[in-house]
Amino acid sequence: MDSMTVIAVVSIVTAGLTIAIGSLGPAFGEGRAVATALSALAQQPDAAATITRTLFVGLAMVESVAIYCFVVSMILLFANPFWNHVIAQAAGH
Amino acid sequence: MDSMTVIAVVSIVTAGLTIAIGSLGPAFGEGRAVATALSALAQQPDAAATITRTLFVGLAMVESVAIYCFVVSMILLFANPFWNHVIAQAAGH
Amino acid sequence: MDSMTVIAVVSIVTAGLTIAIGSLGPAFGEGRAVATALSALAQQPDAAATITRTLFVGLAMVESVAIYCFVVSMILLFANPFWNHVIAQAAGH
Amino acid sequence: MDSMTVIAVVSIVTAGLTIAIGSLGPAFGEGRAVATALSALAQQPDAAATITRTLFVGLAMVESVAIYCFVVSMILLFANPFWNHVIAQAAGH
Amino acid sequence: MDSMTVIAVVSIVTAGLTIAIGSLGPAFGEGRAVATALSALAQQPDAAATITRTLFVGLAMVESVAIYCFVVSMILLFANPFWNHVIAQAAGH
Amino acid sequence: MDSMTVIAVVSIVTAGLTIAIGSLGPAFGEGRAVATALSALAQQPDAAATITRTLFVGLAMVESVAIYCFVVSMILLFANPFWNHVIAQAAGH
Amino acid sequence: MDSMTVIAVVSIVTAGLTIAIGSLGPAFGEGRAVATALSALAQQPDAAATITRTLFVGLAMVESVAIYCFVVSMILLFANPFWNHVIAQAAGH
Amino acid sequence: MDSMTVIAVVSIVTAGLTIAIGSLGPAFGEGRAVATALSALAQQPDAAATITRTLFVGLAMVESVAIYCFVVSMILLFANPFWNHVIAQAAGH
Amino acid sequence: MDSMTVIAVVSIVTAGLTIAIGSLGPAFGEGRAVATALSALAQQPDAAATITRTLFVGLAMVESVAIYCFVVSMILLFANPFWNHVIAQAAGH
Amino acid sequence: MDSMTVIAVVSIVTAGLTIAIGSLGPAFGEGRAVATALSALAQQPDAAATITRTLFVGLAMVESVAIYCFVVSMILLFANPFWNHVIAQAAGH
Amino acid sequence: MDSMTVIAVVSIVTAGLTIAIGSLGPAFGEGRAVATALSALAQQPDAAATITRTLFVGLAMVESVAIYCFVVSMILLFANPFWNHVIAQAAGH
Amino acid sequence: MDSMTVIAVVSIVTAGLTIAIGSLGPAFGEGRAVATALSALAQQPDAAATITRTLFVGLAMVESVAIYCFVVSMILLFANPFWNHVIAQAAGH
Amino acid sequence: MDSMTVIAVVSIVTAGLTIAIGSLGPAFGEGRAVATALSALAQQPDAAATITRTLFVGLAMVESVAIYCFVVSMILLFANPFWNHVIAQAAGH
Amino acid sequence: MDSMTVIAVVSIVTAGLTIAIGSLGPAFGEGRAVATALSALAQQPDAAATITRTLFVGLAMVESVAIYCFVVSMILLFANPFWNHVIAQAAGH
Repeated sequence: MDSMTVIAVVSIVTAGLTIAIGSLGPAFGEGRAVATALSALAQQPDAAATITRTLFVGLAMVESVAIYCFVVSMILLFANPFWNHVIAQAAGH
Repeated sequence: MDSMTVIAVVSIVTAGLTIAIGSLGPAFGEGRAVATALSALAQQPDAAATITRTLFVGLAMVESVAIYCFVVSMILLFANPFWNHVIAQAAGH
Repeated sequence: MDSMTVIAVVSIVTAGLTIAIGSLGPAFGEGRAVATALSALAQQPDAAATITRTLFVGLAMVESVAIYCFVVSMILLFANPFWNHVIAQAAGH
Repeated sequence: MDSMTVIAVVSIVTAGLTIAIGSLGPAFGEGRAVATALSALAQQPDAAATITRTLFVGLAMVESVAIYCFVVSMILLFANPFWNHVIAQAAGH
Repeated sequence: MDSMTVIAVVSIVTAGLTIAIGSLGPAFGEGRAVATALSALAQQPDAAATITRTLFVGLAMVESVAIYCFVVSMILLFANPFWNHVIAQAAGH
Repeated sequence: MDSMTVIAVVSIVTAGLTIAIGSLGPAFGEGRAVATALSALAQQPDAAATITRTLFVGLAMVESVAIYCFVVSMILLFANPFWNHVIAQAAGH
Repeated sequence: MDSMTVIAVVSIVTAGLTIAIGSLGPAFGEGRAVATALSALAQQPDAAATITRTLFVGLAMVESVAIYCFVVSMILLFANPFWNHVIAQAAGH
Repeated sequence: MDSMTVIAVVSIVTAGLTIAIGSLGPAFGEGRAVATALSALAQQPDAAATITRTLFVGLAMVESVAIYCFVVSMILLFANPFWNHVIAQAAGH
Repeated sequence: MDSMTVIAVVSIVTAGLTIAIGSLGPAFGEGRAVATALSALAQQPDAAATITRTLFVGLAMVESVAIYCFVVSMILLFANPFWNHVIAQAAGH
Repeated sequence: MDSMTVIAVVSIVTAGLTIAIGSLGPAFGEGRAVATALSALAQQPDAAATITRTLFVGLAMVESVAIYCFVVSMILLFANPFWNHVIAQAAGH
Repeated sequence: MDSMTVIAVVSIVTAGLTIAIGSLGPAFGEGRAVATALSALAQQPDAAATITRTLFVGLAMVESVAIYCFVVSMILLFANPFWNHVIAQAAGH
Repeated sequence: MDSMTVIAVVSIVTAGLTIAIGSLGPAFGEGRAVATALSALAQQPDAAATITRTLFVGLAMVESVAIYCFVVSMILLFANPFWNHVIAQAAGH
Repeated sequence: MDSMTVIAVVSIVTAGLTIAIGSLGPAFGEGRAVATALSALAQQPDAAATITRTLFVGLAMVESVAIYCFVVSMILLFANPFWNHVIAQAAGH
Repeated sequence: MDSMTVIAVVSIVTAGLTIAIGSLGPAFGEGRAVATALSALAQQPDAAATITRTLFVGLAMVESVAIYCFVVSMILLFANPFWNHVIAQAAGH
C-alpha cells in the first residue's frame, strides 16, 4: 500500500475507535450522576434548584471529556494534518 | 488488495465497531438513570414532575454520546472523505 | 482473494458482530430498568401509571441504541454502499 | 481457498458467534427482570396483576434484542445476500 | 486444505463454541431467577402459586435464548446449508 | 496435515472446550440456586416441601443447559457427521 | 509432524484444559453452597436434617457438571476414538 | 513504508488512543464525585456552599488528568517534535 | 522437533497449567466455605459439631475437584499413554 | 526502518500510552477521595476545615503519581536521551 | 533448537507459571479465611478455641492446593521424567 | 536493527510501561486511604490528630511502592547499565 | 540463538514473572487479613492478644505462598539445574 | 541479534514489568489496611496504640512482598548472573 492509503486507513480506524472507547467513560459517568440526582430529588425535593444546577455543571464537566474525544475524532477525519501534508505533497509532486 | 478495497474494508469494520462499542456505555448509563428514576418515583410520587423532567434532560445528555458514535459511523459509511478522495482520484485517473 | 470477496467477507463479519456486541448494553440496561420498575411497583402500587409511563419512555430510549446497531447491521447486509460500488464497477467493467 | 468457500466459512462463524454473544445480554437481563418480579410478588402479592403485566412487556422488549441477533444469524445462514450473489455468479459463469 | 475440509472444520468449531458461550448467559439468568424464587417463597409462602407460575414463564423466556443457540448449533452440525451445497457440488462434479 | 487429521484434531479440541466453557454457567447457576434454597430453608422451615420442589425443577432447567453442551461434546466425539463423511469417503476411495 | 503426533498433542492439551477450566465453575458453586449451608445451620440449627439433605442433593448436581468434564478428559486420554482410529490405521498399514 | 509515513501513522493512532483511554478514568471519577455531591446536597442542603466549592476544586483536579492526556494528544497531532524533525530533514535533503 | 520432543513439551506445559488453573476454583471455594464456617461458629457456638461436620464433608467435595486436576496432571507426567506409546514405538523401532 | 525512525515511533507510542494508562489510577483515586470528602462534609459540616485540608494533601499525593507519568511522557517527547544520542550520532556522522 | 533445550526451556517456564498462577487462589482463600476468623474472634471471644482449631484445619486444606502446585513445580525442576529421559538418551548415545 | 537501537527501543517502552502500570495500584490505594480518612474524620473529629498522622504514614508506605517503579523507570532512562555497556563498547570499538 | 542464550533468556523472564504474578495473591490476602484484624481490634479491644496471635499465624501461612514463588524465582536465577547442565556441558566440550 | 543483546533486552523488560506488576498487589493491600486502620481509629480511639502497632507490623508484611519484586528487579539490572556470564565469556574470548 502506498503512504496515502495507509494514512487514510489509520485515520479511519482511529477516528472510529477514539469516539467509541471514549464514549464509555462519559456515558457511565453521566448515567451515574443523573441517577444520583434523581434519588437526591426524591429524598429532598426542596433542594431541587441546587441539585439540578449542580447536576448540569457536573454533566457539562463530564461531557467535556467526551467532547475532547469527538474533537480528536473530527480532526482525524476532516482536518488531519498528516493527510493534508501527504495530499499537498502528492499535488505538488 | 488495491487502495480502494482496503479503505472500503476498513470503513465497514470501523463503522460497525464504532456503533457497537459505543452503544455499551450509553445503554448502561440510560438503563441506570431510568432505573433510579423509577425507584425515585416510587419513593416520592409527589415530585414526579421534577423527576421526569430531570430524567429527560439527563437521558438527552447520555444519548448525545451515543449519537456522536452514530454520527461517526454514518460519516464513515456515507460521507467518508478518504473514500471520496479515492473515488475522485480513480475517476480522474 | 479479489476485492469483491474481501468486502463481502468483511461485511458479513461486521454485520454479525455489530448487532452481537451492540445487544449487550441495551439488554442489560433494559433488564435493569424493568427490574427496578417491578420493585418500584411493589413498593408504591398507587404510582403504577406514572411508573409504567416513565418505564416505557426509558425503554424506548435504551432500545433506540440497540436499533442504531441493528440499522448499521442491516445497512451492511442489504444497502452496503461499498458493495454496491464494487458490483457496479464489476458490471460496468 | 476460492471466494465461495471463504464466504461460506465466514458466514458459518459469524452466524454462530452472533447468536452466542448476543444471547449473553438478553439472558442476564431477563434473569434479572424475572428475579425482581418474583421478589416484588413476594413483597406485594396484591399487585400481582400489574407486576406480571409489566414483566411481560419488559421481557418482550429484552427478548426483542435477542431476536435481532437471531434474525441476523438466520439471514447469514439461509438468506445471505453475498452468498446468493456468489452462487448466482458461479451458476451464470 | 480443500473447501470441504475447511467448511467441516469451521462448522465443528462454531457449533461447539456457539452452545458453549451461549450457555453462560441463560445458566446465570436461570440460576438467579430460581434463587430469587426460593427466597420469595420463604418470605411469602402464601403466594407460592403466583410465584412458581411467574417463575416458569420467566424460565421459559430465558431458556428460549439458550435454545436459539442450540438450534444454530444443531443446524451447523446436521442441516448446514453450506456443507450441503459443497457435498452436492462434489457429488455432481 | 490431511483432511482426516484436521477434522479429528478440531473435533477433540472443540469437544473439550465445549464442555469446559459450558460447565461454568450451569455450575455457578446451580450453586447459587442451592445456596438460596438453603438460606430459604433456614428462614422458613415450614415451606420445605415447596422450596425443595421448586429447587429441583429449577436445577433441572439449569442442568438442561449443561446437558446441551455435553450432548454437543459427545456428538463431536462419537457421532460426528463430518468425521463419518470423511471416513466413508476414505473407505470408498 | 505426522498425524499421530498431532492427535496425541491435541488430546493431551485438551484433556488438561478441559478439567482445569471445567473445575472453576463447580468449585465456586460448591464452595458457595457449602458456605450458605453453614450459615443456614448457624441460623436455624433445628432444620439441620433438611438443610444437610438438600445440601448433598445440590452438591451432587453441581459435582455432576465437574464429572462431565472429568469424563471427557478421561475419554480423551484413555478411550480417544480418533487416536484409536489412527493407531488401527497405522497397525493395519 | 518510508519513515515519514510510519511516524505519521503512529502519531495518528497514539493521539486517538491516548485521549480515548485517558478519558475513561476522569469521566468515571468526575461522575462519581458529582453523584456524591448531589446526594450530599440532598442530605445536608445547608452546607451547599462548602459542598459545591469542594466539588469544583475536586473536579478541577480530576479534569487536570484528562487535560494531560488531551495535551499529549494535541502535541502529537500539531507539535510533534519527531514529525517536525523528519519534515525538516526531508526539506533540507 | 521430532514427535517425542513435541509430546514431552506439551505434556510438561499441560501438566503445569492444569494444576495451576485448576487450583483457582477449589482454593477460592474452600476459603469461602471455611470463612463462613468460622462466622457461623461465632454466631452459634452450640452448633459447632454439626457445623464442623458439614464443613468437612463440603471441603472434601470441593477438594475432590482439585484432586481431579492433580490426577490428570500426574497422569500426564508419569503415566502418559501417548508418551508410553511413542517410547514403545521408538524402542521397538 | 532505520534506527532513528524506530526510536521516534517507539517514543511516540510510549509517551501516549504512559499518560493514557497512567491517568486511570489517579483519576479513579481522586474521584473517590473527592466523593468521600463531599459525603463527609454533608455528615459533619463543622469539620469542614480539617476535611478539606486533609483532602487537598491527599489529592496532592495521588496527583503526584499522575505527574510521575506525565514527567516520563514529556521526557520521552522532548528530552529523550536515546533520541538525542541518535541525533548527535547522525549529526557527527 | 535441539530437543534438550526445548524441554529445558519449557520446564523452566512451566515451573514458574505453575507456582505463580497457583498461588493466586490459595493466597486469596487463606486471606479470606483468616479475615473471617479474626472478625469471628472479635464477635465471640469465648469460642476462640473452636474457631482457631477450625481455622487451622481449613488453612491446611487450602494450603494443600498450593502445595500441589509447588510439588508439580519442583517435579518439573528437579525430577522431570521427560528431561531425565532425554539426558539418559543423550548419555547413552 | 543493530544492538544499540534495540536496547534503546526496549528501554523506552519499558520505562513508560513500568511507571504507567505501576501507577495504578498506588493511586487506587492512596485514593482509598484518603477517602476512609475523610469519612473517619467526619465520624470522629476529635481523633483528627491520630487519624491524619496514621494517614500520612500509610500514604508514605503506599507512595514508596510507586517510587520503586519511578526509580526503575528513571534508571532505565538515565542510568541504564546495559545501554552504558553498549555505548562503551561502541566507543571503544 | 544458541541453547545457552535461550535458557538464560527464559530463566530471566520466568524468574521475574513468577514473583510478579505470585505477589498479587499474597499481597491482597495479607492486606485483607490485616484490615479485618484492625477492625476486629476496634470492635473488641479486650481480645487483642488472641486476635494478634491468630493474625500472625495467618499472615505466616499466606506469606508462605509468596515465599514459594520467591524460592522458585531464586532457584531459576541462582541454582537453575538446566543452566548448570548447559554450562557443564559447554565447559566439558 | 547476538546473545548479549538478547539477554540485555530481556533483562530490561523483565526488570520493569516485575516491579510494575508486582506493585499492584502490595499497593492495593496496603491501601486497604491503612483505610481500615483509619476507620478503626475513628471507631475506637482508645485502642489507638494497639491498632497502629498492628498496622505497622501488617504493612511491613505486605511491603515485604513488594520488596521481593524490587529485589528481583534490581538483581536483573545490576547483578544479573546470566549477563555476568556472557560478559565474562565475551571478555575471555
